[in-house]
Amino acid sequence: MAAESMIKLTRGVPPAESFPADKLAVCAAEVLAQHGDIILQYGPSRGFPGLLALIAQETGVAESQVIIGQGSLQLQDLCARMFVEAGDVVYTEDPSYDRTLTVLRRAGARVVGIPLDDDGPNIEMLQNRLQAGERPVLFYIIPDFQNPSGTLLSLEKRQRIAALAQQYGFWVIEDVPYRKLRYAGVDLPTLFELAPDRVIQMSSFSKLISPGLRVGFAVGPEPVIGQLAKMAEDTYINPSYLNQAMVAEFAHRGWLDAQIEVLKQLYTPRLQAMLAALETYLSGRADWRTPQGGFFVGMTLRAEVSADDLLRRAREANLLLTDGRGFFTDGGGDCFVRLPFCALTPAEIDVAIARLAQVVDGLA
Amino acid sequence: MAAESMIKLTRGVPPAESFPADKLAVCAAEVLAQHGDIILQYGPSRGFPGLLALIAQETGVAESQVIIGQGSLQLQDLCARMFVEAGDVVYTEDPSYDRTLTVLRRAGARVVGIPLDDDGPNIEMLQNRLQAGERPVLFYIIPDFQNPSGTLLSLEKRQRIAALAQQYGFWVIEDVPYRKLRYAGVDLPTLFELAPDRVIQMSSFSKLISPGLRVGFAVGPEPVIGQLAKMAEDTYINPSYLNQAMVAEFAHRGWLDAQIEVLKQLYTPRLQAMLAALETYLSGRADWRTPQGGFFVGMTLRAEVSADDLLRRAREANLLLTDGRGFFTDGGGDCFVRLPFCALTPAEIDVAIARLAQVVDGLA
Repeated sequence: MAAESMIKLTRGVPPAESFPADKLAVCAAEVLAQHGDIILQYGPSRGFPGLLALIAQETGVAESQVIIGQGSLQLQDLCARMFVEAGDVVYTEDPSYDRTLTVLRRAGARVVGIPLDDDGPNIEMLQNRLQAGERPVLFYIIPDFQNPSGTLLSLEKRQRIAALAQQYGFWVIEDVPYRKLRYAGVDLPTLFELAPDRVIQMSSFSKLISPGLRVGFAVGPEPVIGQLAKMAEDTYINPSYLNQAMVAEFAHRGWLDAQIEVLKQLYTPRLQAMLAALETYLSGRADWRTPQGGFFVGMTLRAEVSADDLLRRAREANLLLTDGRGFFTDGGGDCFVRLPFCALTPAEIDVAIARLAQVVDGLA
Repeated sequence: MAAESMIKLTRGVPPAESFPADKLAVCAAEVLAQHGDIILQYGPSRGFPGLLALIAQETGVAESQVIIGQGSLQLQDLCARMFVEAGDVVYTEDPSYDRTLTVLRRAGARVVGIPLDDDGPNIEMLQNRLQAGERPVLFYIIPDFQNPSGTLLSLEKRQRIAALAQQYGFWVIEDVPYRKLRYAGVDLPTLFELAPDRVIQMSSFSKLISPGLRVGFAVGPEPVIGQLAKMAEDTYINPSYLNQAMVAEFAHRGWLDAQIEVLKQLYTPRLQAMLAALETYLSGRADWRTPQGGFFVGMTLRAEVSADDLLRRAREANLLLTDGRGFFTDGGGDCFVRLPFCALTPAEIDVAIARLAQVVDGLA
């Protein structure tokens, strides 16, 4: 790698070398031959029957509790339009996924961020707000390897949040796109498993097969999924079944499980390289958590810096960063840097963090 | 065909036998091999470069004036959210496409229908409303083989509407999904050609290749398309490029032009069968226009009937109709029947209209 080439530490994208293009071509040919009449016609907005069945089986729900959309962000947008009226309070972790914050605000939500501790949102602050009478309509949570922080929500906090949702009657949107990309430790129960009548779980195949397929899904109580399906139909009639049928075929052939193993093998050394580089170059000057999976290490610089300076200086050093302020709900984030590690080689990661350390030095 | 089987005269769907599944499988394999890295990754919300270029070239605009979405209804929804604030007036033809009416109302529009004459909306009524000070933000028009009526907007009215849009500063959404399915007569200029700074033209490949691909597009002034692209990114990041690349490949191989010819050959006798059946069974008891293309004949019964009775009795006679009231903006439509003719064989059409005539007899 040329020392002077630009390195991107911006969005959470998979590396192109991970895309199973040949296998997907086999799947496309197969499903067009087998199900062309269904795939190429209009259809119900919930999605391709074969993939609905697969998701239902895996999640242990009825097919009527599943809807597949064109990526999960689109389903979040439909949820936001369905649940949120102008001025309604919506809770998120603070920091949280920037695109979801945009979706919620556009629907009229007053977004309130609950600060993230090492094991999930600060429950005392959450409880205080609820006890003081605040009534959120939604709480958006990424429990597994959170975006942007990499945090894992602890079992105890999962149970507390599930109980509070039931006690105070708010909906939880549980977003788990990274859950199957676990590089260490063992799975904890999902919020949906703990409170199936209060949780809408969302996930997608973007991080497991390919983002370009745009296949995401939501699982939840039947009446809510029914409402979402009506809203989806009124918005785009139905999503493309071709992509959904390809995902189902990919899974039926056993390629999905194999692909997830390949990704874990690919990403584990990249996470290790990221953690090693942070230790080498930024120890004592920044704090970060060690994620057990996913795409991101969230890092906070100890020095007070301005995000504008940081981004500009980084760019001058051939390093593209995402603005940390975009992940925070109510100001702050100047010193926060999201470090996506999946799309870079260990060597690139080492160079990137060395450059970042130099930039930080220059700002101190 | 069994005399007792149910016949659907509901939505405007193409017949399954028209779907070029084998050719699309070839296209899928080709584009995944050639452009897998781009197709399977996240990308800009405007769409796959190869198809953007093709649409731009065909429409005679810059690529920056094009956005491709997951069907055109979704782009209409984004337009509605962008242009309409609660209470804003939006004009449509009366009757108009029921799904668009839903999209507009959901965005808060006060939908005002301009009654359709044989050659398009009643210009005198349009002009009177504008002169009286009403200020619509949008006028949604389907000029070619209108849904649900089959009407063609005349050249003179196209020119008048283009001039009024410029004079009064409203946007026209011109929806032309059926334009290339012309079975008689010659093309008239589009509204976009007449007033390119005031018109957003929408179309799709749903009626030309397959609805299931969900590939629709909008063409318009660069700033509006830029705003739409931002809103699209904030809603679903990007549409599936796989489907778009397949459409581009299909066109590059010369298969799209050939497919359109095949469809015209298939649909022309179906339209003729529909018109003949109407003449045979409903002459003197209903009025209809003779469309030069598209999917629909719009028919109005002369007798006063209730849509509830009509739909129920039709269903009892194994005939599914769409509720005519859904196409009208302000009541009415009980006696209106949209007759889609593309997905039925001439023999089925004859049986369907014979049944419809019997139902009408029973109601008189």
